[in-house]
Amino acid sequence: MGIVVQKYGGTSVGNVDRIKNVAKRVKKTLEEKKKVVVVVSAMGDKTDELVSLMYEVTDHPPKREMDMILTTGEQVSMSLLSAALFELGIPSISFTGWQAGIETESVFGNARIVDIKPERMFESLREGKVVIIAGFQGVTDDMEISTLGRGGSDTTGVAVAAALKADYCEINTDVEGVYSTDPRIVPNARKLPCITHNEMLEMATLGASVIHPRAVELAKIHGVKILVRSSFSDEEGTFIKEENDLEQAIAVTGVAYDTDVIKVEVLKMPNIMGTIAKLFDYLASEKINIDMIVFSEHGHETINVAFSVGIEKGQQTVDQLNKHKSELKFEDAFYEKDVAKISIIGSGMTTNPGVAAKMFKILGDQDIRIKMITTSEIKVSCIIPEDRGIEAVKLLHSAYDLDVEKTANVEGTP
Amino acid sequence: MGIVVQKYGGTSVGNVDRIKNVAKRVKKTLEEKKKVVVVVSAMGDKTDELVSLMYEVTDHPPKREMDMILTTGEQVSMSLLSAALFELGIPSISFTGWQAGIETESVFGNARIVDIKPERMFESLREGKVVIIAGFQGVTDDMEISTLGRGGSDTTGVAVAAALKADYCEINTDVEGVYSTDPRIVPNARKLPCITHNEMLEMATLGASVIHPRAVELAKIHGVKILVRSSFSDEEGTFIKEENDLEQAIAVTGVAYDTDVIKVEVLKMPNIMGTIAKLFDYLASEKINIDMIVFSEHGHETINVAFSVGIEKGQQTVDQLNKHKSELKFEDAFYEKDVAKISIIGSGMTTNPGVAAKMFKILGDQDIRIKMITTSEIKVSCIIPEDRGIEAVKLLHSAYDLDVEKTANVEGTP
Repeated sequence: MGIVVQKYGGTSVGNVDRIKNVAKRVKKTLEEKKKVVVVVSAMGDKTDELVSLMYEVTDHPPKREMDMILTTGEQVSMSLLSAALFELGIPSISFTGWQAGIETESVFGNARIVDIKPERMFESLREGKVVIIAGFQGVTDDMEISTLGRGGSDTTGVAVAAALKADYCEINTDVEGVYSTDPRIVPNARKLPCITHNEMLEMATLGASVIHPRAVELAKIHGVKILVRSSFSDEEGTFIKEENDLEQAIAVTGVAYDTDVIKVEVLKMPNIMGTIAKLFDYLASEKINIDMIVFSEHGHETINVAFSVGIEKGQQTVDQLNKHKSELKFEDAFYEKDVAKISIIGSGMTTNPGVAAKMFKILGDQDIRIKMITTSEIKVSCIIPEDRGIEAVKLLHSAYDLDVEKTANVEGTP
Repeated sequence: MGIVVQKYGGTSVGNVDRIKNVAKRVKKTLEEKKKVVVVVSAMGDKTDELVSLMYEVTDHPPKREMDMILTTGEQVSMSLLSAALFELGIPSISFTGWQAGIETESVFGNARIVDIKPERMFESLREGKVVIIAGFQGVTDDMEISTLGRGGSDTTGVAVAAALKADYCEINTDVEGVYSTDPRIVPNARKLPCITHNEMLEMATLGASVIHPRAVELAKIHGVKILVRSSFSDEEGTFIKEENDLEQAIAVTGVAYDTDVIKVEVLKMPNIMGTIAKLFDYLASEKINIDMIVFSEHGHETINVAFSVGIEKGQQTVDQLNKHKSELKFEDAFYEKDVAKISIIGSGMTTNPGVAAKMFKILGDQDIRIKMITTSEIKVSCIIPEDRGIEAVKLLHSAYDLDVEKTANVEGTP
């Protein structure tokens, strides 16, 4: 009998009624002759509440004690869910991170899982129980309680699925799956029946985030299938898995859109060994994360470098560059605010020539100015003027046959 | 350097300001060159809130899951207190029950501590840290989280003090110590500087409860000194210890008063072997707790039995008796509501003859009708009419030289 891991996020267990609803969904899965392991987050805003409480006590909470207080959130949800299952006549047992054997590195606030000792979970499953696990937490070598940081519960779900060799890991959330683009922008965005881990990684780090990239990465490494679906409906969701089956041949799976970027330009920097490295090192030391980088040597003595950073980092970036201007010897550094990043993603791209060219043509035909381009194996991203962004998303979504009315184009002619 | 265990109850850690106040008190104790271990309860009404939440999910919560949810309460307080100490520049570390090595029997909801492995606490104390422990919880042999039930945090405090061979265990609460009687009834009730474990046990099971009898019993067995004091003032509290020092000779230490009782009488029951046992067995099967029992054989063929039960149990008791009337063959069973129990307590009683007689005389002189009497080594209790109760408390308190104006009567002539 196969094992399914079901992860329910904070919204899905936000109150007692929703917890009862989760219990019913678990029951339904059991009726499909599956063994079920549930990973839960803290209820609704509980984590934020606990953080605030801690900050009422001190502006500098010790990380260890922050983990201590935060882990209570999941412990509350899991015991309530276990009780709700008992109420439906379903035997179940809840485990904290240390009880479930989730071992992490000795770090607080952002620990990575190093191992899972699944014996206790297997034992309870053998006894016919539903196993409920506190997401987001683990235990270190020296018996300290740790948390996994951002995306922690998703990561717990995937890691547990890997350790138990589960059929797949469901991520039950408040959206119905992964869409070909943001349905708020393109109303006929298509829910994708499946997508590869790599495609999902490109989607998630852009703006279509429904599952934390860290969890997707872990799933990719361990070959864990993920099913993203809604906790609030019975709609089929989106499978994230290694190979994209039938749709493999489709060049473009989705269009991602992100307005939370700005473009920075550094002009006329001398083309000397190590200057580029120094420049990005100075930015890294200020914790400025760089997204796209465009640079190409053209045989001249000076070079231009362009890159994108988070929208709130513009002034800080330029200030930091100017601080080191005498060393880096560039002529000018400035940033441009009113831009957006639009990307097409698809693992079929590599085998379908002309996908990128088509994107540039569509944008060019409408006089949408492309200010920057980067490409990867499965993604092409352009920086364009923000005021043309939504129009561009709609154009590309339609041009790549992603609109919901149309039949999927199995041939994927770009 | 001596170790002090300080237990702070729910009221004492009821909000962030109070937790900061506890941190200041810990700091003061450190300045007295003591090592400090703190045991905390859940904040204010937190435990009740968690219980309610559980009952919103089900009318029959699994005990294991109830323990799982309840133990989060103490975990929250302890991490906040640890943070508050860091804020004062004091290194500290908080431990859940399992981290502190508090091992209990394999029972949920009402487990007894079977052992404490103090190594980790000692190690942190050696490192100069304040150790903070979640009260009320432990871990079973098979790594299950258990709770200790009523009086759990007091019990944790005493058990930890025993394991660490602490100088004493402070019970910080919302009263300033143990009084010779209820100060709400007798305004010049005296705060006792010290009292023996046995006297405290008799006081606590009556109405002067400031610490759970279970914790006092444990302290008695392990010879742990307890200091009951207020979290909200610097007043000296009451020491509970084996020998009562100077005051040993005082016959009566306190007067206890309890209106939460009723008297039940069973009349003309045949005096046949085993009938009495059967009677109380039938009551026990209905979970009716008996307090005082008065019975004496007088050579007749029928006997009368009187006993006291909790005020809400009267009708249930009589109903249960009548259900078995044909077997028990008594003539009548009824209960009397408007009564109260008044007791004098003192470990010096055994060596001071006439203490009980004086009590009966004082009550008799004022025509306060005594409806029932029981005695133990260190206590005499009478059931009297409730409407004369407060008057009786005042009379006895004064007659035994307990009023605060007077000097302690070291000779203790009764």
